[in-house]
Amino acid sequence: MENLQQHIDSVMQKASEAFKIYRKVSGKDKAVFLRTIAQNILDLGDSLIQTAHQETNIPEARLIGEHTRTCFQLETNARLLEEGSWVEARIDTALPERAPMPRPDIRKMLIPIGPVVVFGASNFPFAYSTAGGDTASALAAGCPVVVKGHPAHAKTSEMVAEAVLKAVSTCGLPDGTFAHVAGHSFEVGRALVLHPIAKAVGFTGSLNGGKALFDLANQRPEPIPVFSEMGSINPVVLMPEKLKAEASQVALTYANSITLGMGQFCTNPGLILAIDNPDLDTFIETLSKAVEQVAPAAMLNAGIYQNFEGKRTVALSQEGVKTEVESLVEKTGIIQAIPTIASVSSSIFLENPTLHQEVFGPYSLIVKCTDLDNLLQVIQHLEGQLTSTLMATEEELQDNPEIVETLRNICGRLIFNGVPTGVEVCYAMQHGGPFPATTDARFGAVGPDAIKRWVRPASFQNFPEKLLPAELQSQNPLNIWRIVNDEWTR
Amino acid sequence: MENLQQHIDSVMQKASEAFKIYRKVSGKDKAVFLRTIAQNILDLGDSLIQTAHQETNIPEARLIGEHTRTCFQLETNARLLEEGSWVEARIDTALPERAPMPRPDIRKMLIPIGPVVVFGASNFPFAYSTAGGDTASALAAGCPVVVKGHPAHAKTSEMVAEAVLKAVSTCGLPDGTFAHVAGHSFEVGRALVLHPIAKAVGFTGSLNGGKALFDLANQRPEPIPVFSEMGSINPVVLMPEKLKAEASQVALTYANSITLGMGQFCTNPGLILAIDNPDLDTFIETLSKAVEQVAPAAMLNAGIYQNFEGKRTVALSQEGVKTEVESLVEKTGIIQAIPTIASVSSSIFLENPTLHQEVFGPYSLIVKCTDLDNLLQVIQHLEGQLTSTLMATEEELQDNPEIVETLRNICGRLIFNGVPTGVEVCYAMQHGGPFPATTDARFGAVGPDAIKRWVRPASFQNFPEKLLPAELQSQNPLNIWRIVNDEWTR
Repeated sequence: MENLQQHIDSVMQKASEAFKIYRKVSGKDKAVFLRTIAQNILDLGDSLIQTAHQETNIPEARLIGEHTRTCFQLETNARLLEEGSWVEARIDTALPERAPMPRPDIRKMLIPIGPVVVFGASNFPFAYSTAGGDTASALAAGCPVVVKGHPAHAKTSEMVAEAVLKAVSTCGLPDGTFAHVAGHSFEVGRALVLHPIAKAVGFTGSLNGGKALFDLANQRPEPIPVFSEMGSINPVVLMPEKLKAEASQVALTYANSITLGMGQFCTNPGLILAIDNPDLDTFIETLSKAVEQVAPAAMLNAGIYQNFEGKRTVALSQEGVKTEVESLVEKTGIIQAIPTIASVSSSIFLENPTLHQEVFGPYSLIVKCTDLDNLLQVIQHLEGQLTSTLMATEEELQDNPEIVETLRNICGRLIFNGVPTGVEVCYAMQHGGPFPATTDARFGAVGPDAIKRWVRPASFQNFPEKLLPAELQSQNPLNIWRIVNDEWTR
Repeated sequence: MENLQQHIDSVMQKASEAFKIYRKVSGKDKAVFLRTIAQNILDLGDSLIQTAHQETNIPEARLIGEHTRTCFQLETNARLLEEGSWVEARIDTALPERAPMPRPDIRKMLIPIGPVVVFGASNFPFAYSTAGGDTASALAAGCPVVVKGHPAHAKTSEMVAEAVLKAVSTCGLPDGTFAHVAGHSFEVGRALVLHPIAKAVGFTGSLNGGKALFDLANQRPEPIPVFSEMGSINPVVLMPEKLKAEASQVALTYANSITLGMGQFCTNPGLILAIDNPDLDTFIETLSKAVEQVAPAAMLNAGIYQNFEGKRTVALSQEGVKTEVESLVEKTGIIQAIPTIASVSSSIFLENPTLHQEVFGPYSLIVKCTDLDNLLQVIQHLEGQLTSTLMATEEELQDNPEIVETLRNICGRLIFNGVPTGVEVCYAMQHGGPFPATTDARFGAVGPDAIKRWVRPASFQNFPEKLLPAELQSQNPLNIWRIVNDEWTR
């Protein structure tokens, strides 16, 4: 049997060969490919759902929703390719008469960066995994994809990989356009990221995992970009007038958001900031009553359960932290998480970095602030986040620009009177944010713009018209939006 | 006297305070600011040109051109801000009736990333320095800028910094919107890049310098993006039919490009690839006759001269390298570079990594290939480049797609029948490329798109109309191009 390095080398060599062909495939043909993948995944039907359910403990209903979302992501990328304007074509035509020097004809568009290595997430076996958002957007960009299968749902990953490979074959694309590498050890991922043929990395998971890959990639002789979407505690600010008016209603909304999917979402609200007053007491009381009725349920796997229990125990044992409520419903299995709400004063929170860390699961910490200035101070001390949420009246939103600005500055998505859980797949979605939410805040992982992680601009100077890519030909045969001599035009 | 760290800390704190205000300044007001900077630089008149000439040995005529270019870059960014569509606004309106879940209203635009540290280049005291392309684009983005003045043109840098600071004051912007830090030592740059307030870095210069800053920034507790534009040998491929038709003419064009500005351009053609035949002999003969007449001239400074002499000596002493020509004109000063052309066989070139390194100055290496397959093989072994050039007939361009594709894949800009020197400031320009040309091929340093290095997408979910930034308001008060519910519209 060949050893690991030989196997990885053979996979990456195939990806490199495939890139030479796949990068030239038209947007329309790539759209057909993405839709074929979606159809093949649909065709797997209930057996795929059952396999994922057995591997992840995620309820079937949610898996069916995630399955639909995964196909929709592929469809979204297919539409992006068909529309075509995403390549950001810019044309500056020659100015032969210009003095003192003539201007040559220059044309630019986005082209694929090269083979991409994708690490799927444990908590989304479909939508952020083998044929999830990273894979869909990288394939859309024209990059071959090598997926490192997640060991927590190895069979699911294999099944989806087969669906993608079948589409590669049906669509007549080169062999190495997609590859799936199984393997439990970190060594597999390490070998993939360090391979000279890899040109970018997509990762969804923990801060430790994502940061390790980022460091590895930057230590290569040729550093490559890594987009790691990592942890986030997603602060929620409860403004006093809002609480005065709707403490109980807000509490019920958040009881649901905090415990949804046993809190195993990267947008789970793990931190609640409010001013300590009787309205906050009402909020906590209602929240507690709701959370104590939420039945513990199995987490994704034993590792994630142990991580939750460990971090929860550490958090609850910090000086000054009060456990407000734990679910009163009895556990019926060993890897079931107990939904938990704790509270702490702002002064202790500010001094204890442990309390700023994510506890991945159904856990949220309420930070009791003394007044609005103190609340602002706490916000200013938070790290980068995927989301921030402001529960406020419209007047409070208007009257507190510094709180709004500061929240906006630390996160990728700022929500007004809503919950952070639920990530729409659309153009306006930013699923990303300043470190440690991701390793590069300039990109996002969800929606059509996610393709930008895997492309780079390339200029063509003085090229004969007929040898230019269709996107850059003067007649604009693809009818895409372009900037021509400083004007947006189609 | 305060120590270095205290000084840097005070500068960065001011930048942080300024960011809170400057990030909210409208595009129109930032455009006025950039134009005021340009006017202040113009007002410095001849004394600025003379100072730069004394510090860099660059001829006055070229400095005047670069001065004009610098003001044009500021103007280009001002126009970008006035037009406004660069923020990539995307709006997905609410779908309250959608089943199973309603869609909230989500709107996204690019916002500034935070204070940016800029390291100017020695070879462009205006256009890539204190108020050069990095500073102009970062200020346009809404980021305060801290410039580390280049010690090789310290007075020039101080003068330009004064012009910027005067504009900050005239335009009523906060103090820390721009700062200039002088200092010879690497410690100054190191302290700036490591400061927690710094959120991105722009650098133009050597591979060693740019890579060192990149590594520093990635080792921070919070890694930040570094865009280093570094070395490049800018391969030029001479195809046989082109040489057969125009060997002498191509040689004269390249004699000029190689020795322009004593070769001190990052787009200097340092590598020429061709098939070894009598037409190449003609090319070399004509090139040699032209280069031997080019008078040695002073390089930018003693350090750059010593670096050139050192690297040139090492390159010429490699086994199998033949010195084709050195300038026959006598040197009249101690830091004058001797224009030099060398040649080597492809087999030796492929085996000796030293020959792939940049020799910054008027030096070019001709690699003699055996045939087209061998030529392709050499191209496949090149590292990332800012530019690649193909001198070919149209038929050769058409008949050799793999050579074209491979050249395109290693560089940011692919030139057909031209020279790489001369970087247009326009939308379609890509001044960047795969490592080691830059540290992130997904961005470029020249033209309006250079602003993208300093911004990140931010979403607003469910925000009241009147509290949204103007760019995202439904009525589109700025009349910018946006994607609204999947459609491009204005």
